[in-house]
Amino acid sequence: MNLKIVIIGGGSSYTPEIIEGIIRRHHSFPVTEIVLVDIEEGKEKLQIVGELSKRMILKSGKPIQLTWTLDRKKALVGADFVSTQIRVGGLQAREKDERIPLSHGFIGQETNGAGGIFKAFRTIPVMMELAADIHDLCPEAWMINFTNPAGMITEALLKHSDHKKVIGVCNIPFNMRHSTAEILNVSPDDVEIEFIGMNHFVFGRKVTVNGQDRTEEVLEKLKKGLDYSPANIVNLGWSSTFIDSTKLLPNPYHQYYFQTKDVLTKDIKAFEENGTRAEKVQELEKSLFDLYKNPELQDKPKELEERGGAFYSDVACSLMDSIYNDRKDIQTVNTFNNGAITDLPTDAVVEVNSIITKNGPEPISVGPLPPVVKGVIYEMKAFEELVIKAGISGNYNDAYTAMIMNPLVRDEKGSKILLDELLEAHKEHLPQF
Amino acid sequence: MNLKIVIIGGGSSYTPEIIEGIIRRHHSFPVTEIVLVDIEEGKEKLQIVGELSKRMILKSGKPIQLTWTLDRKKALVGADFVSTQIRVGGLQAREKDERIPLSHGFIGQETNGAGGIFKAFRTIPVMMELAADIHDLCPEAWMINFTNPAGMITEALLKHSDHKKVIGVCNIPFNMRHSTAEILNVSPDDVEIEFIGMNHFVFGRKVTVNGQDRTEEVLEKLKKGLDYSPANIVNLGWSSTFIDSTKLLPNPYHQYYFQTKDVLTKDIKAFEENGTRAEKVQELEKSLFDLYKNPELQDKPKELEERGGAFYSDVACSLMDSIYNDRKDIQTVNTFNNGAITDLPTDAVVEVNSIITKNGPEPISVGPLPPVVKGVIYEMKAFEELVIKAGISGNYNDAYTAMIMNPLVRDEKGSKILLDELLEAHKEHLPQF
Amino acid sequence: MNLKIVIIGGGSSYTPEIIEGIIRRHHSFPVTEIVLVDIEEGKEKLQIVGELSKRMILKSGKPIQLTWTLDRKKALVGADFVSTQIRVGGLQAREKDERIPLSHGFIGQETNGAGGIFKAFRTIPVMMELAADIHDLCPEAWMINFTNPAGMITEALLKHSDHKKVIGVCNIPFNMRHSTAEILNVSPDDVEIEFIGMNHFVFGRKVTVNGQDRTEEVLEKLKKGLDYSPANIVNLGWSSTFIDSTKLLPNPYHQYYFQTKDVLTKDIKAFEENGTRAEKVQELEKSLFDLYKNPELQDKPKELEERGGAFYSDVACSLMDSIYNDRKDIQTVNTFNNGAITDLPTDAVVEVNSIITKNGPEPISVGPLPPVVKGVIYEMKAFEELVIKAGISGNYNDAYTAMIMNPLVRDEKGSKILLDELLEAHKEHLPQF
Amino acid sequence: MNLKIVIIGGGSSYTPEIIEGIIRRHHSFPVTEIVLVDIEEGKEKLQIVGELSKRMILKSGKPIQLTWTLDRKKALVGADFVSTQIRVGGLQAREKDERIPLSHGFIGQETNGAGGIFKAFRTIPVMMELAADIHDLCPEAWMINFTNPAGMITEALLKHSDHKKVIGVCNIPFNMRHSTAEILNVSPDDVEIEFIGMNHFVFGRKVTVNGQDRTEEVLEKLKKGLDYSPANIVNLGWSSTFIDSTKLLPNPYHQYYFQTKDVLTKDIKAFEENGTRAEKVQELEKSLFDLYKNPELQDKPKELEERGGAFYSDVACSLMDSIYNDRKDIQTVNTFNNGAITDLPTDAVVEVNSIITKNGPEPISVGPLPPVVKGVIYEMKAFEELVIKAGISGNYNDAYTAMIMNPLVRDEKGSKILLDELLEAHKEHLPQF
Repeated sequence: MNLKIVIIGGGSSYTPEIIEGIIRRHHSFPVTEIVLVDIEEGKEKLQIVGELSKRMILKSGKPIQLTWTLDRKKALVGADFVSTQIRVGGLQAREKDERIPLSHGFIGQETNGAGGIFKAFRTIPVMMELAADIHDLCPEAWMINFTNPAGMITEALLKHSDHKKVIGVCNIPFNMRHSTAEILNVSPDDVEIEFIGMNHFVFGRKVTVNGQDRTEEVLEKLKKGLDYSPANIVNLGWSSTFIDSTKLLPNPYHQYYFQTKDVLTKDIKAFEENGTRAEKVQELEKSLFDLYKNPELQDKPKELEERGGAFYSDVACSLMDSIYNDRKDIQTVNTFNNGAITDLPTDAVVEVNSIITKNGPEPISVGPLPPVVKGVIYEMKAFEELVIKAGISGNYNDAYTAMIMNPLVRDEKGSKILLDELLEAHKEHLPQF
Repeated sequence: MNLKIVIIGGGSSYTPEIIEGIIRRHHSFPVTEIVLVDIEEGKEKLQIVGELSKRMILKSGKPIQLTWTLDRKKALVGADFVSTQIRVGGLQAREKDERIPLSHGFIGQETNGAGGIFKAFRTIPVMMELAADIHDLCPEAWMINFTNPAGMITEALLKHSDHKKVIGVCNIPFNMRHSTAEILNVSPDDVEIEFIGMNHFVFGRKVTVNGQDRTEEVLEKLKKGLDYSPANIVNLGWSSTFIDSTKLLPNPYHQYYFQTKDVLTKDIKAFEENGTRAEKVQELEKSLFDLYKNPELQDKPKELEERGGAFYSDVACSLMDSIYNDRKDIQTVNTFNNGAITDLPTDAVVEVNSIITKNGPEPISVGPLPPVVKGVIYEMKAFEELVIKAGISGNYNDAYTAMIMNPLVRDEKGSKILLDELLEAHKEHLPQF
Repeated sequence: MNLKIVIIGGGSSYTPEIIEGIIRRHHSFPVTEIVLVDIEEGKEKLQIVGELSKRMILKSGKPIQLTWTLDRKKALVGADFVSTQIRVGGLQAREKDERIPLSHGFIGQETNGAGGIFKAFRTIPVMMELAADIHDLCPEAWMINFTNPAGMITEALLKHSDHKKVIGVCNIPFNMRHSTAEILNVSPDDVEIEFIGMNHFVFGRKVTVNGQDRTEEVLEKLKKGLDYSPANIVNLGWSSTFIDSTKLLPNPYHQYYFQTKDVLTKDIKAFEENGTRAEKVQELEKSLFDLYKNPELQDKPKELEERGGAFYSDVACSLMDSIYNDRKDIQTVNTFNNGAITDLPTDAVVEVNSIITKNGPEPISVGPLPPVVKGVIYEMKAFEELVIKAGISGNYNDAYTAMIMNPLVRDEKGSKILLDELLEAHKEHLPQF
Repeated sequence: MNLKIVIIGGGSSYTPEIIEGIIRRHHSFPVTEIVLVDIEEGKEKLQIVGELSKRMILKSGKPIQLTWTLDRKKALVGADFVSTQIRVGGLQAREKDERIPLSHGFIGQETNGAGGIFKAFRTIPVMMELAADIHDLCPEAWMINFTNPAGMITEALLKHSDHKKVIGVCNIPFNMRHSTAEILNVSPDDVEIEFIGMNHFVFGRKVTVNGQDRTEEVLEKLKKGLDYSPANIVNLGWSSTFIDSTKLLPNPYHQYYFQTKDVLTKDIKAFEENGTRAEKVQELEKSLFDLYKNPELQDKPKELEERGGAFYSDVACSLMDSIYNDRKDIQTVNTFNNGAITDLPTDAVVEVNSIITKNGPEPISVGPLPPVVKGVIYEMKAFEELVIKAGISGNYNDAYTAMIMNPLVRDEKGSKILLDELLEAHKEHLPQF
């Protein structure tokens, strides 16, 4: 039997991780074919990654056929899973997403700040086209999206494309679970965290280890500085008062919302000294590709884990494995709320624990949001809806409402300045505007 | 380590089934102590069942200590699980629940018709006292209720008692799953049905076998007369039109609501010929106890499966096993809705697929009810709320509203007649009125 | 300034009432033009009614131009208000709506029983066409619908037609208010009743007279037999227990739902003796038209008030007057719920007290439904949604779900029998099926 | 017949306005007795205001008996209306509410910023006691609250006190309506604005003049700088983009949320130059009382209108008049949502157009919130719930959650600093902490 995976954005430096994940799971998830797809501008990287991937598979001895191509449509035919890890406009675009807001005194948050709005605007049209192709060419395929802003992209697709087999994934819940395990000195497999909210705005409400409630213990550790940030985020730590008052596990991105002044000061200083995170990532990427070119290299190099997105691919592989095997295990994904969080719309995409079946994720009921964060979570979801609306419509006023209702902007004049500069800076990637 | 189960109503003829279930699961669910509890009136039966249970355990060779007592409070100390299978007023009361309505031309439905209202009224005060004892004496214990009307009793306890670790179980979803498996010629373990609604008013929406959607096939079989009724219900079968229009799997109790005239005709005829179901059950019980007394008998006798409640205990054992082991498998239980069914209140008890954890069940999101049945399901839930309110308050007018809003009664005059006669007939068991 | 009213179904025997209402309000609602419209089959009646109306206007001395025509489109041009009082299939169709169900032991309720379903099915296509014409020819006109089932027809139009200026009216709230006033011996203008629910399933929750709460007093009277039924319904009266338990004012149609057995017995007896209500109405109509023909007659004859629909027109005139004058007074109309009743969908049409403005009705918040009736009201609304869906789709299975979910039918076999016979009986008026 | 009004905080400089309003409405709202109540610290002002009020009444010739007292309980006996205009801690407290946040770079917004949280904390216990007295001594009396934060105080009382006849009022909707009238050159009586949201966070969605929709026209004016701010707020104006994107009428307080940076700059500058608004108000008050002392003065002096709260009393008088007369006119008040805004809880207090009856306000349905502001409105309401919870509980962590979830603070460290300093500064008025 054929089991075919197509990786859109296959020339990404993350690809070796997903290849490794596929190899490792081959006994239960017997992939027979992998096609890496990228665009003309990524041709060179695609070949480097393709060749490394081939060497990895060869070393593993698994009967997996791997090819790479620029012809997306041809690649999609017969696919069972399509994973997406694209970056429209590349790291240069990300640099602008960060730099332009910072230059006006706003946080250049690339996933759900002003920058994230434009990442969504650039990505939505491309993903809508991709979803249309999938719907035509491999309608039974599951689309596993780990392109950021993963929650908003997933909601845009589920609401506006014809292809309804779309799931969003993120490594934040994975990281939070792993860091928590480390701190409690137990296996990550034994840890479960009840997640509440949306992508990059998710909170943990309850930690159990083999069913034993150990939330209080973790909260105590958090008060002492427990850090479960991915590599791309320097966590400022959380105060006892914050933890005692919310009784929730924040995720690393929450610092942007609740420690805004400090983050801004730090970001501006860092920017003045070293440029943006995007610039650092560009350097890191360059050195990664230098490594990848080495024909002796037959494994995912350690250095890859320094990237913020590490483990994304592991999350994606786990998910595909559970769908394929109808495992009905619990994973944290981005999917339609469907009542799980009673305060949010049924058709909002949320990031919650879900049962993973052959027919996709089924969220486990969360009930009402904790009163202390229900306001900010609802607000953030409403903001996301405005971004999606504008990303689809391409209407200037829609885009303005998204910008001003972002809690990191929320400024009448500043919104217009950011909007105008970012529209200009990214215009080649914004066909809808 | 100690693992203690207390069985309230331990003198019930169903007890050998639960004993068998515990023995069978001993490798993963290592019960060390079982106490059967009953009341003075059930003393003799309790001894018969107790002795049979002892012989069963002896034969199994498992190190389980079994005792029986009339002292409930003493028994509860140290319990991990308390299962409840009581019948306040005994089968004589059930006979009245059926006979009185029938004599006025209404269906004497003992679980959610006029009779069921009074079963709830008799049972609620007893269960409230039990829950208070559990809360005092073994606050960590899970109360597994399979006393009917299981949904309403569970909701009454979850809303009005201090003990919140209460789960209601029923054999209907179990039976539906098993019959469906039989018809599809697959193992019941591979079959999953998405259940929607409340106890004895639950529908199946989707049937999957190892993740493959086979709903249409099952609906076709239903049109040809597939019967998944328990032994106590003669199913009249469902027409093609009904199945094609609803696209749902009804449960056996739905015939009372959608085939009312035929059931009534049949029940009246059967009553005239043979007395009520309750009377038949009384005979059956008598012959069961005659069997149980046989000192040679060391196993649950086959004859027990002819009772309508068969497999209840299996369902309960599965549930206790999964809680104990934090299995996170999917079982169908009665628990707080918590948003799973978006049309029903958060604190309504519903019967839905749930993840079973050490901390109890977490329902999987169902989303909005199917439009075709949302009216009747909502109505039934509102009726249940009225029954619970009256069962707690003991107020005559509250009881009247419950009676008239039952869809099998809904008659201004008839409601009063039934209410007055049933209040009189059961008065010794209705301290609250 | 021109103020033009078009009366669809202008040949109806009720027309003189609306003419009288217009004349009476001419000082504040200065109608300049009335056009009566009817279809070929009603040509003769149209002329009789037209001539009587002309005489009425002449006598009044008001400068109103009245004409009649079979050309609907031409009539609509320039209209400010369009009132609709049609009866697709005439009284013969109503007779079938009542007779066929009765012959199978079901209540032939012509507004929201089995008969009402078919009245809706016949009327929806005609009203959809009319709404389309209005939308084309006089898009600013308000459509005032008093064709039954008024609530469902209004919801069908508001949801499925492009014309959104539609309001449904009924004389039941008017009658309840007037009877209540009579019993309290006060002026109807001083009485306000808080209405809750839907057309023909509306309850009164609170009665105030000039702001004084006199609900208890009215409930006491109800227990003694207060009758606020229209002429077409013989009220059986309500018991003390029913009133004390619900604390609500039922409307006359509630007897069909809560006194079903008695009504059925009575209806069958009446039918055997005298034929259906429809047949009686046919006779009454005939004698009315005989009166109308009298060239001496210059007023609405007293005999008209014996019809069940009396005062419908008064309700409609009041409504048009308040819209025209932006009165912001409180009237009871059928309009989108919009949150007024928190338990029902936002886009359900409900019958509630509303502020009447130039821009249409704005419902006053009711809040959650009273627990005692929330089940039946929700159920009834869900049933209505099924009727509307089927009335638009013309799908057999949709029609079956509407039939079986009607609380007066709710019978698997009976539903099919009624459905098939009624579809056959009315086929010429059911183009959509 | 007696009609008695008790004014709590009767020594306020606003009292002459309410006296004037009562005199002006005496023909329809025939007040017979007014008692001004204040506390020991306000004794002197109370006498000054009391004597001026007496002179005003004398001049009017109305048969109203006016007295003043420090004995609140005695004053309340027999009251029909109790109006409340207290300022716990006086203007000194307000100065701290503004100065402390400003000194840390946060807006010292005294109604719903950090300062407003403490105004609520100081006021809630006092108002709870007052409500308890009213409930004991004049249970039929309506409590008309115009003490800020008016929305939160009203919600606290409606949820936590036994007295349920409480209505909150504010002059913002009044001012918006009057400024709009001015700009459209029409009478304020002909203007209606659909208000959506909560006190000091209310938006106008639709403007009608005698039922004619003139919203677009007003939005155009807004883009040109229409100012409907009260005297205490300097409006920065709204940009075309903001207006075109939201299509809503902001209220003057919205500048704190959407023009935060500019307001902060301005406030800091103003503070450095002139001290806080509170200090200016103190001076204004002093000069007002100098005027009031003049025994020749028999009227409300013009100078009073320079205060931000001008017309509050007019709003309160209108409201009392409509309740007394069961007018059923439309006024904008703070009352339980009850479904009017479908996105907010049923028991949230909202500021919406309501029908004013003898039994209090009944909100007119608004429906779903406009998507563009639903996030911020929901967030603000959730924040208010946290303030109320903390104001009742006196719990430190509850207070911290309120502070950090305020959109003008939302800073982990800053919240603690503000909280600690404000708790210390106001401790004598915070018995609950």
